[in-house]
Amino acid sequence: MEVITSTDNKKIKNLCKLKEKKYRDEENLFLVETKHLIEEANKCGLLLEVIILDGEDLDIDVLKTYVSLNVMKKLSFISNSKYIGVVKKYEPYNYNKRLLLLDNIQDPGNLGTIIRSASAFNIDTVVLGDNCVDLYNDKVIRASEGMLFQVDCMRKNLSRFIDELKVNNYLIIGTNVVNGINVSEFKYPDKFAIIIGNEGKGISDEIKTKIDKNIYIPMNKKTESLNASVAASIIMYEMSKMDYE
Amino acid sequence: MEVITSTDNKKIKNLCKLKEKKYRDEENLFLVETKHLIEEANKCGLLLEVIILDGEDLDIDVLKTYVSLNVMKKLSFISNSKYIGVVKKYEPYNYNKRLLLLDNIQDPGNLGTIIRSASAFNIDTVVLGDNCVDLYNDKVIRASEGMLFQVDCMRKNLSRFIDELKVNNYLIIGTNVVNGINVSEFKYPDKFAIIIGNEGKGISDEIKTKIDKNIYIPMNKKTESLNASVAASIIMYEMSKMDYE
Repeated sequence: MEVITSTDNKKIKNLCKLKEKKYRDEENLFLVETKHLIEEANKCGLLLEVIILDGEDLDIDVLKTYVSLNVMKKLSFISNSKYIGVVKKYEPYNYNKRLLLLDNIQDPGNLGTIIRSASAFNIDTVVLGDNCVDLYNDKVIRASEGMLFQVDCMRKNLSRFIDELKVNNYLIIGTNVVNGINVSEFKYPDKFAIIIGNEGKGISDEIKTKIDKNIYIPMNKKTESLNASVAASIIMYEMSKMDYE
Repeated sequence: MEVITSTDNKKIKNLCKLKEKKYRDEENLFLVETKHLIEEANKCGLLLEVIILDGEDLDIDVLKTYVSLNVMKKLSFISNSKYIGVVKKYEPYNYNKRLLLLDNIQDPGNLGTIIRSASAFNIDTVVLGDNCVDLYNDKVIRASEGMLFQVDCMRKNLSRFIDELKVNNYLIIGTNVVNGINVSEFKYPDKFAIIIGNEGKGISDEIKTKIDKNIYIPMNKKTESLNASVAASIIMYEMSKMDYE
């Protein structure tokens, strides 16, 4: 068994490049760490290869490459990593009826958490505006707890995509405290898209003009707003109640 | 006006120590950054001093110390900081009727987000178990968006504190999918404490034995769990509905 021990190895250098969005976009590949995430990627048929720390092993039927500790440290984002998966990007072509649209979500932890909640609360497709943080950022992947592989995600120009949705009779739902409907009283139609805005600025002005209805989360006056992933999760939680009625 | 330009200045060295929990505990002081957080601390009468970048100013009636850019960079956690507030810790002596108990919450972002939601959803007191991340960690403060100054927070040995609550007729509410009550159907009594467990391990075994009732959040079977701050926020959100009925 060959073990790669040099960080100057060409293959390792190429894999390292995947830490940057530019190369992930070029190669259509990304890296995941932890056994759990590697297994989730494998279940979806997207795992191409695993990089394994010398002395460890993984019971998985895929190309395996063994590396020394210094090489693993070079590749890894987290401490004490034993395995790194090389995963193919997947973007579905079609979307379904229940959409969550993200307008300029910048915090990777928020994006990952929103995807995790979207999976829990029966959203079909999460649509990232092209101003959002990269879906394949390592922090997004970790915060999603592997649910990235359970929910369809796509990246779109939101403004044009909303126009397409309107033609197809989707209700466009915004979040706003003014003139909104209490989120617990809102009646969802068959096809809809809920828009979540940027952490600091909310939904951008251009997108706001395309909203059909606004919903709000009732809260104490002393608090101006909720964390974006919390607000998104409460909205999805309330929406999913119709599945249990 | 004197401007401190040396990072070896004794005062600056002492302030820098407040970046570590040990010294925050010893001095009963902590640092906050951004104008918004400094103003929130001031409203509560807890602001002792502001450190201001040379060339900037802040319209606030408190001791001001001006520093050069290199000194500000040394003190600051974030980039482009212009102001740092030196703030007195405050721990209330009494707690009220609606408590949120945190058992081993480790992620600073989660703790700050939970505090922000606790303020939004009418929790009286957030009680950190002594195994939680430090309340005065800079990331906790930033994630709380200043709501740290709006909600009473205290640190306790949770196990002993729950025993005290039980004597005082508080209902102890856990979160668990087995044998629980749907969070949207739960009837809250006058006095209660909701327990939120660790991000990975949930509520610790010792604390579990003290729970009176469990509640759960209905979700899709393909998702094992929610982010801890999301779960806590949904529970508090549902609880706060009784204030609007």
